[in-house]
Amino acid sequence: MPELRKDMLTGRWVIISTERSRRPDDFRPSAQAEIRRENLAFCPFCPGNEAKTPPEVYSIRDNDSKPDQPGWKTRVVPNKFPALTPGSLPPRKTRGSYQWMAGVGIHEVIIENPDHNVEMVDLPLDHLAEIIKVYRQRTIVIEQQLHYQYVQIFKNKGQEAGASLSHPHSQIIATPIVPKRIKEEVYGAERLFRNSFRECAICRQLREELQSGERLVFENESFVVMTPFASRFPFEMAIMPKRHSAFFRQIADEEITSLVEALKQALSRLKAQLSDPPFNLVFHQAPNPQVAEKAWPGIDYYYHWHLEILPILTKVAGFELGTGFYINPVPPESAADYLRKNEQPKS
Amino acid sequence: MPELRKDMLTGRWVIISTERSRRPDDFRPSAQAEIRRENLAFCPFCPGNEAKTPPEVYSIRDNDSKPDQPGWKTRVVPNKFPALTPGSLPPRKTRGSYQWMAGVGIHEVIIENPDHNVEMVDLPLDHLAEIIKVYRQRTIVIEQQLHYQYVQIFKNKGQEAGASLSHPHSQIIATPIVPKRIKEEVYGAERLFRNSFRECAICRQLREELQSGERLVFENESFVVMTPFASRFPFEMAIMPKRHSAFFRQIADEEITSLVEALKQALSRLKAQLSDPPFNLVFHQAPNPQVAEKAWPGIDYYYHWHLEILPILTKVAGFELGTGFYINPVPPESAADYLRKNEQPKS
Repeated sequence: MPELRKDMLTGRWVIISTERSRRPDDFRPSAQAEIRRENLAFCPFCPGNEAKTPPEVYSIRDNDSKPDQPGWKTRVVPNKFPALTPGSLPPRKTRGSYQWMAGVGIHEVIIENPDHNVEMVDLPLDHLAEIIKVYRQRTIVIEQQLHYQYVQIFKNKGQEAGASLSHPHSQIIATPIVPKRIKEEVYGAERLFRNSFRECAICRQLREELQSGERLVFENESFVVMTPFASRFPFEMAIMPKRHSAFFRQIADEEITSLVEALKQALSRLKAQLSDPPFNLVFHQAPNPQVAEKAWPGIDYYYHWHLEILPILTKVAGFELGTGFYINPVPPESAADYLRKNEQPKS
Repeated sequence: MPELRKDMLTGRWVIISTERSRRPDDFRPSAQAEIRRENLAFCPFCPGNEAKTPPEVYSIRDNDSKPDQPGWKTRVVPNKFPALTPGSLPPRKTRGSYQWMAGVGIHEVIIENPDHNVEMVDLPLDHLAEIIKVYRQRTIVIEQQLHYQYVQIFKNKGQEAGASLSHPHSQIIATPIVPKRIKEEVYGAERLFRNSFRECAICRQLREELQSGERLVFENESFVVMTPFASRFPFEMAIMPKRHSAFFRQIADEEITSLVEALKQALSRLKAQLSDPPFNLVFHQAPNPQVAEKAWPGIDYYYHWHLEILPILTKVAGFELGTGFYINPVPPESAADYLRKNEQPKS
């Protein structure tokens, strides 16, 4: 059973993962090369290999096809080596001065499309829309269990971004506590709402950004793609919904049409302008609504869900690890300017 | 001039670095390979190339040798491409809803030894002690300027750990604000001191760790090497001074003898057991004493300086970036067990 352990000074929780536990010898370069060779030789996510993953929990597939058989377009399966494992809410325990709890949670893989070599950026818009609908559907289903307090949707593209398998996929991890960084964002948004702006900070930001245009990359009816003012990484982008909402799960179907156009614009520019770098795609949404509305009354008014795209072009080093400060060698205004240059085709 | 910019939701500051600014084209793989080739062909840190760095601010050298000439054992120079540049305390400014300030600070490089191919782990203990004394001396000198509120000492070893030059070196960056992560640690230590333990949390932790021994890697008269209970990374180690002190700069010469033995033990085990992986070495100390004692009265009682060694064996991915949660596939108890196995020679 994995464990959640709390760092007593900073309050940061870590997952000590036993299911994906590795022996110390596995970290030797020769063992790492062996793992990579095995992953190249066989793909458990390709059609025909459905038996190599745990049974699917959801899929979009041809009408005449059966679960765990080929014929799917997008397939959701539990992670075979989950960071957290399903269960009821565990009690918090102590070991000496330390706090920990059982590592209960959900860890799912969304296999985005059957073709091993077609990346998210190259999918047709309607397929991309299906994937976003799958994210929405899984969020709603997982959040029915109230002790899954936060649902993190993310994608690691490329080995440098943390992907261990190359077949295009995204992941969902639901945790039994609200993570520190999410709490920081929620408290920050609340403070700005109550003490400074008297409105949602991101709504205000969007108005200013659309007016100045200097960090704007792309805009359509419902979404804005921009490089954040305090970007941590070169060419970092945020995709912001224009309509205020704390909960991604409330996105409407017509907004999804607009979102996938914005997402494709962002990813295409990254691919064309920066030679297809590894990246992380990270959702930021409010905690499970039933938890959120109790812990943060009014959160619907001040939190604003959004996406981050974080290209991996520099290394995080000792200074960042020590201080939490990031050093970004590309001003977001130059990054936006460069990303704007090549207008991408619309589909 | 570099800028410090504040992320409004999380309160996280980033450095938008113009001195080390890179053109977007520099991120293409071909340009990256070119930079690496140049760095391999010529080393500005090797003896004879002293003119290729800014003039030294400090050095340990033969009595008959001159500054910025060969004959040095350890040499401190301003970073040629500093993340922050010296200056007086800048005012905080706003741009629309955003906060920023000029990127004022200190960024120095400590060239640890003249030999390009002798890594920290292979230095004699007396040379290692000289380097620690240089860290101490630079901290004291930089902290004379009160607006340098925090001094971060760190080392990036290996390209994957963020080192752009391979000649063994460490770095110091002093910032005009106390970084978020340091504040979290200080507030966390204060809370534990006042509300829970009525003593320093790390002193208490050390007592428990020495008693249980399950996360202990090495111990000598004045220092303990251990794998933290809530380790973020596989084989992460902490080096903790047994004598309570908030300020690394207060370390005594005889304690330095003990520290370098502990440091060498930690680094040797990493090298021998894990095939010399890239790593970050990160100091954690209280802010500039004059600032600290005003902002956090009693900080001498509850904060406890220490070192972290963070091997780079896994990738930080979308889940970590989104939530601030880390997934560690090696329980710290297994890591300590493995690192303990090979007793290393004492020098």
